[in-house]
Amino acid sequence: MKHTLWGSAFTKNPSSEVLSFTAGRDVKSLPACDEALIPYDIMVNKVHCSMLEKQSIISHEDAQKLLTALSDLEALWRKGEFLLDPEKEDVHTNIENWLTEKLGIEIAGKIHTARSRNDQVATDMKLYTKEMAQVFIDELSSLVDSLQKLSITHSKTIMPGFTHHQHAMVTTYGELLKSFSVMLQRDCQKFSAWNEIHDESPLGSMAGYGTSFPIDKKYTASELGFNSAFKSSIDTVTNRGESETDLAYSIVSMMNHFSHIAQTFIILSTPQFGFIRLADNFSTGSSVMPQKKNPDPLEVIKAKAAYASGQLQSLIAIGQANFLGYNRDSQWSKYIIMDLIRECIPTPQILQELIESTETHAEQMEQWCHRNFIGATTLMEQLCKSYKIPMRVAKIIVEKAIKNSENKHKIDYNTLINACNEHHISCPVTKEEVMKWQDPHWLSDLKTT
Amino acid sequence: MKHTLWGSAFTKNPSSEVLSFTAGRDVKSLPACDEALIPYDIMVNKVHCSMLEKQSIISHEDAQKLLTALSDLEALWRKGEFLLDPEKEDVHTNIENWLTEKLGIEIAGKIHTARSRNDQVATDMKLYTKEMAQVFIDELSSLVDSLQKLSITHSKTIMPGFTHHQHAMVTTYGELLKSFSVMLQRDCQKFSAWNEIHDESPLGSMAGYGTSFPIDKKYTASELGFNSAFKSSIDTVTNRGESETDLAYSIVSMMNHFSHIAQTFIILSTPQFGFIRLADNFSTGSSVMPQKKNPDPLEVIKAKAAYASGQLQSLIAIGQANFLGYNRDSQWSKYIIMDLIRECIPTPQILQELIESTETHAEQMEQWCHRNFIGATTLMEQLCKSYKIPMRVAKIIVEKAIKNSENKHKIDYNTLINACNEHHISCPVTKEEVMKWQDPHWLSDLKTT
Amino acid sequence: MKHTLWGSAFTKNPSSEVLSFTAGRDVKSLPACDEALIPYDIMVNKVHCSMLEKQSIISHEDAQKLLTALSDLEALWRKGEFLLDPEKEDVHTNIENWLTEKLGIEIAGKIHTARSRNDQVATDMKLYTKEMAQVFIDELSSLVDSLQKLSITHSKTIMPGFTHHQHAMVTTYGELLKSFSVMLQRDCQKFSAWNEIHDESPLGSMAGYGTSFPIDKKYTASELGFNSAFKSSIDTVTNRGESETDLAYSIVSMMNHFSHIAQTFIILSTPQFGFIRLADNFSTGSSVMPQKKNPDPLEVIKAKAAYASGQLQSLIAIGQANFLGYNRDSQWSKYIIMDLIRECIPTPQILQELIESTETHAEQMEQWCHRNFIGATTLMEQLCKSYKIPMRVAKIIVEKAIKNSENKHKIDYNTLINACNEHHISCPVTKEEVMKWQDPHWLSDLKTT
Amino acid sequence: MKHTLWGSAFTKNPSSEVLSFTAGRDVKSLPACDEALIPYDIMVNKVHCSMLEKQSIISHEDAQKLLTALSDLEALWRKGEFLLDPEKEDVHTNIENWLTEKLGIEIAGKIHTARSRNDQVATDMKLYTKEMAQVFIDELSSLVDSLQKLSITHSKTIMPGFTHHQHAMVTTYGELLKSFSVMLQRDCQKFSAWNEIHDESPLGSMAGYGTSFPIDKKYTASELGFNSAFKSSIDTVTNRGESETDLAYSIVSMMNHFSHIAQTFIILSTPQFGFIRLADNFSTGSSVMPQKKNPDPLEVIKAKAAYASGQLQSLIAIGQANFLGYNRDSQWSKYIIMDLIRECIPTPQILQELIESTETHAEQMEQWCHRNFIGATTLMEQLCKSYKIPMRVAKIIVEKAIKNSENKHKIDYNTLINACNEHHISCPVTKEEVMKWQDPHWLSDLKTT
Repeated sequence: MKHTLWGSAFTKNPSSEVLSFTAGRDVKSLPACDEALIPYDIMVNKVHCSMLEKQSIISHEDAQKLLTALSDLEALWRKGEFLLDPEKEDVHTNIENWLTEKLGIEIAGKIHTARSRNDQVATDMKLYTKEMAQVFIDELSSLVDSLQKLSITHSKTIMPGFTHHQHAMVTTYGELLKSFSVMLQRDCQKFSAWNEIHDESPLGSMAGYGTSFPIDKKYTASELGFNSAFKSSIDTVTNRGESETDLAYSIVSMMNHFSHIAQTFIILSTPQFGFIRLADNFSTGSSVMPQKKNPDPLEVIKAKAAYASGQLQSLIAIGQANFLGYNRDSQWSKYIIMDLIRECIPTPQILQELIESTETHAEQMEQWCHRNFIGATTLMEQLCKSYKIPMRVAKIIVEKAIKNSENKHKIDYNTLINACNEHHISCPVTKEEVMKWQDPHWLSDLKTT
Repeated sequence: MKHTLWGSAFTKNPSSEVLSFTAGRDVKSLPACDEALIPYDIMVNKVHCSMLEKQSIISHEDAQKLLTALSDLEALWRKGEFLLDPEKEDVHTNIENWLTEKLGIEIAGKIHTARSRNDQVATDMKLYTKEMAQVFIDELSSLVDSLQKLSITHSKTIMPGFTHHQHAMVTTYGELLKSFSVMLQRDCQKFSAWNEIHDESPLGSMAGYGTSFPIDKKYTASELGFNSAFKSSIDTVTNRGESETDLAYSIVSMMNHFSHIAQTFIILSTPQFGFIRLADNFSTGSSVMPQKKNPDPLEVIKAKAAYASGQLQSLIAIGQANFLGYNRDSQWSKYIIMDLIRECIPTPQILQELIESTETHAEQMEQWCHRNFIGATTLMEQLCKSYKIPMRVAKIIVEKAIKNSENKHKIDYNTLINACNEHHISCPVTKEEVMKWQDPHWLSDLKTT
Repeated sequence: MKHTLWGSAFTKNPSSEVLSFTAGRDVKSLPACDEALIPYDIMVNKVHCSMLEKQSIISHEDAQKLLTALSDLEALWRKGEFLLDPEKEDVHTNIENWLTEKLGIEIAGKIHTARSRNDQVATDMKLYTKEMAQVFIDELSSLVDSLQKLSITHSKTIMPGFTHHQHAMVTTYGELLKSFSVMLQRDCQKFSAWNEIHDESPLGSMAGYGTSFPIDKKYTASELGFNSAFKSSIDTVTNRGESETDLAYSIVSMMNHFSHIAQTFIILSTPQFGFIRLADNFSTGSSVMPQKKNPDPLEVIKAKAAYASGQLQSLIAIGQANFLGYNRDSQWSKYIIMDLIRECIPTPQILQELIESTETHAEQMEQWCHRNFIGATTLMEQLCKSYKIPMRVAKIIVEKAIKNSENKHKIDYNTLINACNEHHISCPVTKEEVMKWQDPHWLSDLKTT
Repeated sequence: MKHTLWGSAFTKNPSSEVLSFTAGRDVKSLPACDEALIPYDIMVNKVHCSMLEKQSIISHEDAQKLLTALSDLEALWRKGEFLLDPEKEDVHTNIENWLTEKLGIEIAGKIHTARSRNDQVATDMKLYTKEMAQVFIDELSSLVDSLQKLSITHSKTIMPGFTHHQHAMVTTYGELLKSFSVMLQRDCQKFSAWNEIHDESPLGSMAGYGTSFPIDKKYTASELGFNSAFKSSIDTVTNRGESETDLAYSIVSMMNHFSHIAQTFIILSTPQFGFIRLADNFSTGSSVMPQKKNPDPLEVIKAKAAYASGQLQSLIAIGQANFLGYNRDSQWSKYIIMDLIRECIPTPQILQELIESTETHAEQMEQWCHRNFIGATTLMEQLCKSYKIPMRVAKIIVEKAIKNSENKHKIDYNTLINACNEHHISCPVTKEEVMKWQDPHWLSDLKTT
């Protein structure tokens, strides 16, 4: 029994990663959000426990029992044997309850000393998002490398450059790929800047108003791998969701870039353009039309970029005009950022494999470099350069020549000379020059970009 | 073992509905989206099959076998025994594959004749969203009824009316509840208008370009309970997601109204206002602060309003600047609208129970009706009315009187007379009038709203 | 001196309407928002004044003087001689001050009796937006008519239908235009539904808490042409901006449709597609590239659709989680809706002229109807219909045939027969049928859409 | 003649800056956007001209004439005598035309050599936005300084800290102000990070595909004060609007913080809270209610935050799924960012003056620190600390004690002891301790935040 209603026209079927990326949530369920926080919450519990001991807030003995139990829990979780009970409010309650069952309330009842779920969840989320930001940076870097290599491979593959979807000047497929790599490097910078601004541990801010216990927030910050501890407990708790929102913005920026790559590839791979062709395993078929090979992964990337911009909006709205202190509204920032990360995190890798496996049709690309007066600008520039005609005058002459070239694709010598004459410009340009200056190879070699 | 880290200060604990509403997705997983479409897809399959038979596209015998199998499937599903296989792309593939396993490809291979997954999923979604819109209308109507009844109960419960969060004029708690009922009636109208505009069956539009089979789209539209069939197959497929987006807008409008109710109740129930008090079972506690009773459900409503506005944005972005025909991007409209509906659909009922169980503190409300010059406007109006002073002059006099009433809450007779004199206005107003016109009960009885 | 840096290659230059539409606000200043409200505010003043007289709140004599002065003011404004003084807060203050200068405070000081700027501006805005909504309906209706006519003209102009930007099945340019007309009719319905829901006069709601004067809100509603008066004064004032937001949503829906038309036309007019060609007077040139004719008006439409979606978001955010009563935030709804209307209102007419003047290249369109297996679906359908092959089997056969047709654009007889044999299907299809069923004219005539 | 319809109750009237900030665009017109670009465009023209000379693309003599003319133009502009002609497309066309009128096309016709309006306007915008970002940084820094000073002044002004708008623990007004200063420092970091990422000159990218002239992009970058030149001309032109969008995000982040300050101040200054009181000159009155002093500037800040989030959304939407190369849509990024900057740039200064002039009512703040069990958490902590009761047990005891303290605001000794007994905890806590640990001054001194 086949699992899709299409595919017999395909030489290679999409991988399960690609299918999963494009199929979305049709037949895929989502785990509870706090599942992803279990390892971070265990880590936060451990570090908090060590600090309580170090500060003599709990005894060495109690601390050791708690730490051992937490290690046991971690081992259980690694084996897939610790599952969240949906009857217990959240990951924090689940873990504290597990400790209580194991150690009794006399010992486990001390783990939540001098902390609140407010600072606990904020710390879990910071650890989680920092790790995810690093994944984005790593995946983007790999994609940038790949684009740079391909860019060199295609440094002579000429193709029309467009503005307004119309022929502008000649460029190369290599230049196009390079432009992708440059813009994605900015995204790396944005993720790094995010990390620098938000590399602060929230642990110890309690419910936003501190504690009367002599805690050591610098110790926990350092043990958890943060650059520093929070500066204001009210700020930390009131602005919960801000670092998530800022991260979402970086993701939106990256996804917008990806949507640009996707749209460009979708158009370049239409039958009419035919500049490129996606590999069969990055295409999907139709339930009814036998011939279809559709660029679904690229369309899904566009969908996810649109999705991302709305999630950012949700996050911004949640953080707007809030009153002093924690408000439950901000908890929704957790679900939104986690959904957004989950939807977007496979994108760089999918796109890298897609681009690497895409066929380029150099002949088709070149053919269009001889059409629609794409050489007109260089012709104009060379008229200025060689014959000292002011650019504005040269432009008017070339425009006139084009106007008088109905049904042609290049300006011919006579038409140009007639245009010069019409404007009383005497210009000893030669037939050879007129042709050479419109030759896509010649100009592609010459240009400064 | 308790399931929450709080609650010993509560006289009544939140119901599981309230806990589930506020706990969000912390420990709750989400089913695959197509789960919700199973009954609709079976219905669409049945009606399509009947049409194929009626139009002699498939034989009576084949049709009967398919219809019987679909009824069997429906029975299975009702018993919870038909589950989607995540290996099979979507609900459509799952169902066609199930039919094929049961009936063989010779018969089941005919069910997809003259249709595409494009029109099939669009029809499923229309049926699903129409049903959900009706649920919103029903729940809103119930809430409106409840508000209207409470509004009458509280028609004499005076309280300060605010503008800019400052005292404006006296109103009643009943007027406030009435304003809620009026605005929510508009939401009902919006849901109804949505249904009227989108009450068209997409079935038969195929992949957007029709079919060479002699189908009867009016028959299927009517059997499925639609008002009419689609008018343009290209429109139907290109604009997939539009009816979802329009529905999302109605939800956003409703959620914004709910967020206004929530914010108003949150502020009125602060210790400082103390106008109302939420029942314990619509409050939640803190993991660390023993005294806390927090209006979490109201904050969650605000979060969901913020969430809703972003989802609308995602949907709008998905439908922007798309090219002719179906594009896979639009599939994401399915996940977004389903998430949005799932998050918002319990809100009217939760809010109704919350409002009905809220205590009102009439004394506290009335006390503030004697403060901060809240009667100044009526005093001014009555000066105009009784003594023919132009409104603009009366206002200046009353403003002066207020300026000269440092540390007072009402204007006294002498200060007013002094202000009149200062402006050379002779006005035979009496001491009794000055007091009466600032009396909240007197003016509350009188007013036209 | 030319006013643009391009144009010598153009046969016809853009009209000033088109230039103004595309040039945006580069060199165009914007008037104060309240300029547009002057006529409405005068009308509201007149009707309010008549009501005050009718209810004996002001004397007949005062009312007549006020009404005469307001008529004088209207005449002044019509002559362009009443300008807003930016030193005076708003249009209401300007007009009351003008009346005071003319009639003295003894008379003019009565015009603001029993009303607030809150209900006054809300009424001005309702009148203004109702008029604008009607303009949108009228302009859309004209565009719909034009599209329907053109659709008939082009009912035989075959072109490829696309899904996923790839060839799907054959359609006609007429079908495409018809799909535009159908979707824009929905926009008309949305504007009408808006008007029905919001056809209520806010006048008399005062600052949200009524008045102690015996006003007649039904009279003013009727005189101003509204269907009814407001139902709750608190609702009216608290939810200021809601009708603007709802209107903005209708505009967003329309602009999204326009952005779809724009994107489709932009792609169909690329050199590679060459299906259509914009008239020179709906194109603009480049400051540097002599050959350029760019579809700027279409790109501007896309920009305005993107702009519109953000303005909607601003409006939604302003109306979120607000506290009981008027809050100044809501005033920003005025600027946002006015900007949005101003940017979008010329679009239907520009688009109508653009579409009407667009050249269609029927040969180019048809040529692509013979390529990329666009007839495969109909071939499959006819195999089912004529030889009773189950659709799912026929699809697999046709898919196989395509797989074995490398470098071809149609399926040939032998390849099809081989695919049948491979699947042990004996099918007496003829060579003529295989060709006919892939013939774009044949199938375009046959189809049900 | 007064210019407002209110004010006689005010001791001090709002400054024209405040009135202008709150009055918005009611009676204020907006200049053409390119007005703001004139000085930057002149600068870009000069540097480009010098580069053309340096590279021997134009002669020394021509360059000198152009540079002199540009200096003349700058002088004219400084005197307010160079105005944009709305008949000429944009600032670039206006300036080139002015040069042509002055120097003739033989010389002025050379200024646009080797550049396009694409890179020209991108460079103008980069210079403009960099300057604006610096203004935001400077104004924020000043506000941060002010907040830090005030924070020290109020380090002992105790007030209730809130979570969920309910009493949480005691804090100080100084802590609140400090939290504002910390969050605004992050905004400074965000503006700086923006500048670092986008500190690249676009000049020389031409229309996106370079030029055949031997330009020197590093020279122009350096002369214009950029850190470096663009890396990819396609990227520069395709992603026009990205740096504007990123800047808009920083503005949104800042405005969201401001909206939080605004909302907090609005609530703290309600009659019911009465913690603070805005100065009369940061309030505005009503057209009809004599007593009103409304926090309009704060509400306007909230409106502008809502406005900002929508503008960001517009910018993100414009940059989504665009095709390779310049598209006119992206021009709208200019209007949107300029509007956004204009609306937001006065905010930090207005807010600083508003905060500095706000009265604090320390007695009112303190009074609430004795109510609603705000000391319960510290009491619980001290029970743990002094008597080694596990925190979870101590919390249950204190919760019980609260449950049994109907109509009280602090826990008394007997109730606590009873709760201990109920849980079989023997705890030698004293009456004095129970009181001391709930004393707001004691705990405020002690806490670690």
